[in-house]
Amino acid sequence: MATVPSVSYSITVRLEVPTRGRAVSELTHAVENAGGVVTALDVTPSAGDRLRVDVTCATRDTDHAQAIVDGLSAVAGVTVHKVSDRTFLMHLGGKIEMQSKVPLRNRDELSMAYTPGVARVSLAIANNPDDARRLTVKRNSVAVVTDGSAVLGLGNIGAAAAMPVMEGKAALFKRFAGIDAWPICLDTQDVDEIVRTVQVLAPGWGGINLEDIGAPRCFEVERRLRDLLDIPVFHDDQHGTAICVLAALTNALRVVGKEIGDVKIAMAGAGAAGFAILRLLLFAGAGAGRGDVVVCDYKGAVHSGREDLDESLGWIADNTNAEGYSGDLAGAVKGADVFIGVSAPGILTGEDVKAMADDSIVFALANPDPEVDPEAAREHAAVVATGRSDYPNQINNVLAFPGVFRGLLDAQSRGVSEPMLLAAAKAIADVVTDEERGPNYIVPSVFHPDVHNAVATSVREAAGGRARITEA
Amino acid sequence: MATVPSVSYSITVRLEVPTRGRAVSELTHAVENAGGVVTALDVTPSAGDRLRVDVTCATRDTDHAQAIVDGLSAVAGVTVHKVSDRTFLMHLGGKIEMQSKVPLRNRDELSMAYTPGVARVSLAIANNPDDARRLTVKRNSVAVVTDGSAVLGLGNIGAAAAMPVMEGKAALFKRFAGIDAWPICLDTQDVDEIVRTVQVLAPGWGGINLEDIGAPRCFEVERRLRDLLDIPVFHDDQHGTAICVLAALTNALRVVGKEIGDVKIAMAGAGAAGFAILRLLLFAGAGAGRGDVVVCDYKGAVHSGREDLDESLGWIADNTNAEGYSGDLAGAVKGADVFIGVSAPGILTGEDVKAMADDSIVFALANPDPEVDPEAAREHAAVVATGRSDYPNQINNVLAFPGVFRGLLDAQSRGVSEPMLLAAAKAIADVVTDEERGPNYIVPSVFHPDVHNAVATSVREAAGGRARITEA
Repeated sequence: MATVPSVSYSITVRLEVPTRGRAVSELTHAVENAGGVVTALDVTPSAGDRLRVDVTCATRDTDHAQAIVDGLSAVAGVTVHKVSDRTFLMHLGGKIEMQSKVPLRNRDELSMAYTPGVARVSLAIANNPDDARRLTVKRNSVAVVTDGSAVLGLGNIGAAAAMPVMEGKAALFKRFAGIDAWPICLDTQDVDEIVRTVQVLAPGWGGINLEDIGAPRCFEVERRLRDLLDIPVFHDDQHGTAICVLAALTNALRVVGKEIGDVKIAMAGAGAAGFAILRLLLFAGAGAGRGDVVVCDYKGAVHSGREDLDESLGWIADNTNAEGYSGDLAGAVKGADVFIGVSAPGILTGEDVKAMADDSIVFALANPDPEVDPEAAREHAAVVATGRSDYPNQINNVLAFPGVFRGLLDAQSRGVSEPMLLAAAKAIADVVTDEERGPNYIVPSVFHPDVHNAVATSVREAAGGRARITEA
Repeated sequence: MATVPSVSYSITVRLEVPTRGRAVSELTHAVENAGGVVTALDVTPSAGDRLRVDVTCATRDTDHAQAIVDGLSAVAGVTVHKVSDRTFLMHLGGKIEMQSKVPLRNRDELSMAYTPGVARVSLAIANNPDDARRLTVKRNSVAVVTDGSAVLGLGNIGAAAAMPVMEGKAALFKRFAGIDAWPICLDTQDVDEIVRTVQVLAPGWGGINLEDIGAPRCFEVERRLRDLLDIPVFHDDQHGTAICVLAALTNALRVVGKEIGDVKIAMAGAGAAGFAILRLLLFAGAGAGRGDVVVCDYKGAVHSGREDLDESLGWIADNTNAEGYSGDLAGAVKGADVFIGVSAPGILTGEDVKAMADDSIVFALANPDPEVDPEAAREHAAVVATGRSDYPNQINNVLAFPGVFRGLLDAQSRGVSEPMLLAAAKAIADVVTDEERGPNYIVPSVFHPDVHNAVATSVREAAGGRARITEA
């Protein structure tokens, strides 16, 4: 799979060129010859006969960026001054901030927002703790909690290094659902400590979004916190992914005209995401009719005869693979209607996809490199989806988590249940109209104007909440 | 001490009156007759011959508000529709929010702020953890941490009820120092758990502001966290108060022409604030010359002969009261140049103040009711200060904590030391010019345009930091 230049790796090169006819076009040629994509150009006069030019271009990676800078330096008369990485520039000082919603212009306003006026509000909450959901930011806040153990594809990079990801997540919560989220990066990876810390800091929050906590720790952390807290606890790597996969599968099945209870599904990956996807698929009726689900991990199919079954693998063995298939992934995929991978890159070939049933569906979601080359899969499958933004049908958690928490907060829900996850998946799927739906359009864009509100409304109703509570 | 109507307890009464000549003035008379203060009046036509009027007025308390509503109801032809409490209205939905500082308008911006671009920023921090102070909100963030055990004058009201106070504090951090603070209200009052929780959640923050944690627990919590963390830990009830008291005392001594090392100081209160004030006074030279300091708690003077001395009282006995005075507060105050009270209401009389030295200074800071009636104190003392906004010389922590943390964050300080506290006190005192300084003006207003920046600059320099780091 060729990597294309990405805006996420773009640089701005400040340089000077002599004032002559073709100076600027020589620069853009130099970038293009080196394989970069020019995205912006700012020219201002400099001293004497010189122009100052800021060239911004998308690159593939560090080496590619350097090659582009070298190409620019080689243009006759050019002096390169400074190379800035736009992604790093965007992160300087952090991506989020706190804002006061109340004016504090004079002593009177101070006396209402702080002492002495605030004392009456605190007393009201002391007398009726549920008023915290009305009179404080708990009404609208989510803690984005990680232990830094499984951050993106980077692995166990720790709490501080997880901050940029959690800040990004918080920014997305606000952008797409108006939620006030803040990152809480924990300097521990001990289950008991994670659970106790979150329990202790919970009173000020309306929900807990667990993020990038490795399996199997994440299962126990979530289960125990759900038991302990009276606010929703949602591990996005599990349930956000599961919702989006079910939404995409719903529409992919509509495209090929099959029913979820009838299809044979092969899955690769039994980690946090895989386990949650499986549970939601089963809850939605997969395997209920003539179909079945077979889950494979790196050792092959999970079946009740295996001797290495821990709690979650045991659950999988008990609830899937009725025929006790014990072979490898390629064998599981053979004849299957649906493949869902949340595992590792390049574990299937185009030939494996060819061996699937007619009108097969392939979700190859390993990031950044899918389980099977999407181009090769596309030759044989009816619908192909990945986690990548440079192919059609990107399955992206951002479709789900903002609206899910918006709905939970508006319902003042004390928990999350599978009917709510199902409602979210259905809402995402139904945003795509019958006219729009097709092999290359099974999920809406995260920028679709309706999707987050549709998810929020469905989740709120599933949570038993009424219309969104207005604040005055 | 008469209580006057306060904006912090103001109500808006929506009512209808017949359209007749003096209808509106009858309403304002009714409010004034009941002892309220009208602060706003909005009149709009209603149905038929009626006017709709929103009357906003300051009241003393709930009973007084009811008396005013009763007065309004008694005006001929009036129908009262709805009574709103402005302080509660201001709190609906909370007082703070999270905002994204980066645009997220399209896929390219998403790919820089979140995956895949953010991965490079996380990796940079994983390789050099100190980069978190440059590339994340840790650069500018403070956790406002409480266990809800000693909230304002309300006592042990717990974590959820503390939220409005902590949100107010966070709003003040932003308003006066541009700091991104967020409340962390802990559902535990166990020292070990408080310490461990804060330690575990610390990686994402540039500083910890401990707030409203009761004594003596607060001493141990702060000491242990300072040992464990590489960011500043500052218990505002202790050090914010101490800074403001020292600043006010500095200017009060200038007013009466005395030196801090020469004056005899009597203190009431050996809790969190009292202990911190004492330590900072001693660090600033109190008791170093011909003067001495005597601290009293509810049992009388603290002296080495007492058998109930815990760790902090023992320290006080070892470092004050050289003559071993063992009497009561009134005796300690007799002949003293300075009285500083952070204890309980009404424990001294005007006669006690009369028995002080000439040109005495009285800081009666118990809230809301001072240790001595300020009016009575004023008859005998040269300078009187309280914690109240309705008397001159309000000693208010808001003068200190925003600038202190601004300076600490800008210096990327890993701790707080007494020279930094001293620098903050001096900065506050020096904002008051020689021309302005007088018995009724020893501290600037919290809205003084220079005070927070002056504190920040002094603290930053004391912390060894250079000029404020710009963010691009």
